[in-house]
Amino acid sequence: MKPIQVGLLGIGTVGSGTFNVLQRNQEEIRRRAGRGIAITMVADLDVERARAAVGPDVTVVNDARQVVANPEIDIVVELIGGYGIAKQLVLEAIEAGKHVVTANKALLAVHGTEIFAAAQRKGVMVAFEAAVAGGIPIIKSLREGLTANRIEWIAGIINGTTNFILSEMRDKGLDFDVVLKEAQRLGYAEADPTFDIEGVDAAHKITLMSAIAYGVPVQFDRAYVEGITKLGAADIRYAEQLGYRIKLLGITKRVAAGIELRVHPSLVPAKRLIANVEGAMNAVMVQGDAVGTTLYYGKGAGSEPTASAVVADLVDIARLHTADPEHRVPHLAFQPDEMSDVSVLPMSEVVTSYYLRLRVADQNGVLAKVTGLLAAAGIGIDAVLQRESEDVGGEGAPQTDLIILTHDTREGTMDAAIAQMQVLPTVLAPIVRIRKEELA
Amino acid sequence: MKPIQVGLLGIGTVGSGTFNVLQRNQEEIRRRAGRGIAITMVADLDVERARAAVGPDVTVVNDARQVVANPEIDIVVELIGGYGIAKQLVLEAIEAGKHVVTANKALLAVHGTEIFAAAQRKGVMVAFEAAVAGGIPIIKSLREGLTANRIEWIAGIINGTTNFILSEMRDKGLDFDVVLKEAQRLGYAEADPTFDIEGVDAAHKITLMSAIAYGVPVQFDRAYVEGITKLGAADIRYAEQLGYRIKLLGITKRVAAGIELRVHPSLVPAKRLIANVEGAMNAVMVQGDAVGTTLYYGKGAGSEPTASAVVADLVDIARLHTADPEHRVPHLAFQPDEMSDVSVLPMSEVVTSYYLRLRVADQNGVLAKVTGLLAAAGIGIDAVLQRESEDVGGEGAPQTDLIILTHDTREGTMDAAIAQMQVLPTVLAPIVRIRKEELA
Repeated sequence: MKPIQVGLLGIGTVGSGTFNVLQRNQEEIRRRAGRGIAITMVADLDVERARAAVGPDVTVVNDARQVVANPEIDIVVELIGGYGIAKQLVLEAIEAGKHVVTANKALLAVHGTEIFAAAQRKGVMVAFEAAVAGGIPIIKSLREGLTANRIEWIAGIINGTTNFILSEMRDKGLDFDVVLKEAQRLGYAEADPTFDIEGVDAAHKITLMSAIAYGVPVQFDRAYVEGITKLGAADIRYAEQLGYRIKLLGITKRVAAGIELRVHPSLVPAKRLIANVEGAMNAVMVQGDAVGTTLYYGKGAGSEPTASAVVADLVDIARLHTADPEHRVPHLAFQPDEMSDVSVLPMSEVVTSYYLRLRVADQNGVLAKVTGLLAAAGIGIDAVLQRESEDVGGEGAPQTDLIILTHDTREGTMDAAIAQMQVLPTVLAPIVRIRKEELA
Repeated sequence: MKPIQVGLLGIGTVGSGTFNVLQRNQEEIRRRAGRGIAITMVADLDVERARAAVGPDVTVVNDARQVVANPEIDIVVELIGGYGIAKQLVLEAIEAGKHVVTANKALLAVHGTEIFAAAQRKGVMVAFEAAVAGGIPIIKSLREGLTANRIEWIAGIINGTTNFILSEMRDKGLDFDVVLKEAQRLGYAEADPTFDIEGVDAAHKITLMSAIAYGVPVQFDRAYVEGITKLGAADIRYAEQLGYRIKLLGITKRVAAGIELRVHPSLVPAKRLIANVEGAMNAVMVQGDAVGTTLYYGKGAGSEPTASAVVADLVDIARLHTADPEHRVPHLAFQPDEMSDVSVLPMSEVVTSYYLRLRVADQNGVLAKVTGLLAAAGIGIDAVLQRESEDVGGEGAPQTDLIILTHDTREGTMDAAIAQMQVLPTVLAPIVRIRKEELA
């Protein structure tokens, strides 16, 4: 059987990784897939870079539409990124009856509904293992490996840049700004790191996992997104003293009232495996009603780890494209006519526990006043850590840090209580609030 | 479309879990699979137990052949276990053109070649996710998620009983025999725990993963198998002092000369995620040339975790049975006519590093003598831990424990050096040798 013909749109980091992995392991991949998989055409605006990457046997063009329109091409791999031209090209490839493989989480989290519907109409596959957690086969695990389960929640470290920054902040006791510069110097953070450090990238990924877990459409616009830019080294230290680590988690949870979908820094018990995922590594925890807790760990980015997922999708398509389209694995795990419309909850309705840090005047009665307000709001206290005033220093009247861990509380209730505490004359600075997840 | 009809052979722990999960989550499973999945017939020697487990709507028989012969049944789930009647029934089901799902690692590790060949001839699937690591989708991850990779090695904690025992020995400083009795009382170890504690169960599982990773036939008879019965609390303590944990690992590795396939207690650096997998949990590390290190963690046994894998296989079959048989995912990841015959190496050819514990007379010159012998054999020393003699007690002349960590060494070379050290007059007891894996 002749090799399946692949056209690549964009040959940057992941594109060249994909080309290299397919070349290097072509013999083993053919033995697995039952037929060869060959990249025969590449489109990139930088034709010289592309030519250098793929050598003389591959057709290189600077117009992606030539790839999409080529009847010889069976599968289009979209590695351009973003919502603009990438969306147009993916839709045109689908219209041309081609299967599509993409690593574009932003595109699918925002326009997935339209794209999957188009693919369904044309009977082609849109595969996107590379869009979430790089080489970790988490989409496959959720969509195929855990089909027996009612998924209860997913919590993931799904952005390597922010996990690297948090690991460094903790190891070296440095503040966010300092570590970000270091991360940029080392290539772990981009020149414009906004999507990573503000949690947007993680939100794209948890949006896709949420849809797959619960059989709901992608709803990125309903996700709560909070990054790590406001985290202080002090909070990481206090969390440690209380037995926790701070991680940027993407979380989606099924509760009676609907679905939680949120990204924010979270305290996680230090003894959990996921709390020990360091540096740029990714890990996803999945809780299913039958299987219990499972965890998937690996490199979430980089040339060949991401290529590993792209090529796995190519092999899937090579293996399974003969299946009756209605019986292939559905794009979002559930059959398209079987999606439910459970709503994503507003953040005020989310129930979780909290770490609070209050910079207070070091005088009698402050703790009583603060805990009295919490009690009046019906918020239970799990632990209190009051620092000696010499621990935190400060000029003028003595100040100290008061750290409180709460029990589970509705976020709306917590917001109101924080507003009340904030106006106390003995509270001297904006209250720091970080959510806490027990993940058990 | 009418539900796919499933016949269950054996309704013990896993069988009743499978029935319960399919019942409880039937609506979600149908939305995922595109059609219902119904257990309509159950065979068990204990008809009353079976009847109590499944209720009045399911046909219960005591003769498994009635299930296998029933033309209404699309898929047979074999949960009898062992090599005897289970093998016969699986082959008969295949002959009758039925797909088979099984959790029987022993059967497939020993007779897999014959069974997969029969399935291939008849164009049916034999699915066995539940045979390895319970609910963790590790077979799917290896066979489909990591197809881009040249797999370099796999190392897994794939027997919950032994991991529970080792965790308890470490936490409580107790000896093997004591903890085994406790594990039996708690139901973590069977009345006859031989297959678990001697490493046979783990060897069945690593044999299956090895075949899938490298595209070789199952070769259980070539596996090296060593259990945990001879481990002392002292070795666990010394390992800890050197920064290691002791785990029973199933290991398969591709090296230039062939394939390593082995199960034995191993020292693992304490900072590795897998070293922190405690109690009855399972975890599998996979090293691929493109993806790097990945890890999969979850419950490796139990009623519903194992049922999670059985039902995932049922959904896979419901989804994909319309695919051209030649294009379905191959049983052992590689197409059947593309298997290679790389040989499994004898243990003497395996290269790894070692922990040695020598009970020696506490006198001058012993360390020099021992290290001299190692140097003469070309064995490099990574670390030495010499205990104060009062640390270990003892009657008569003072004795002490001498612990040595070596660099990588051929096992045959190590065996010869141990034999030489053993006959030194200052070596007072059998030398303890535990292999060490850096897993990096």
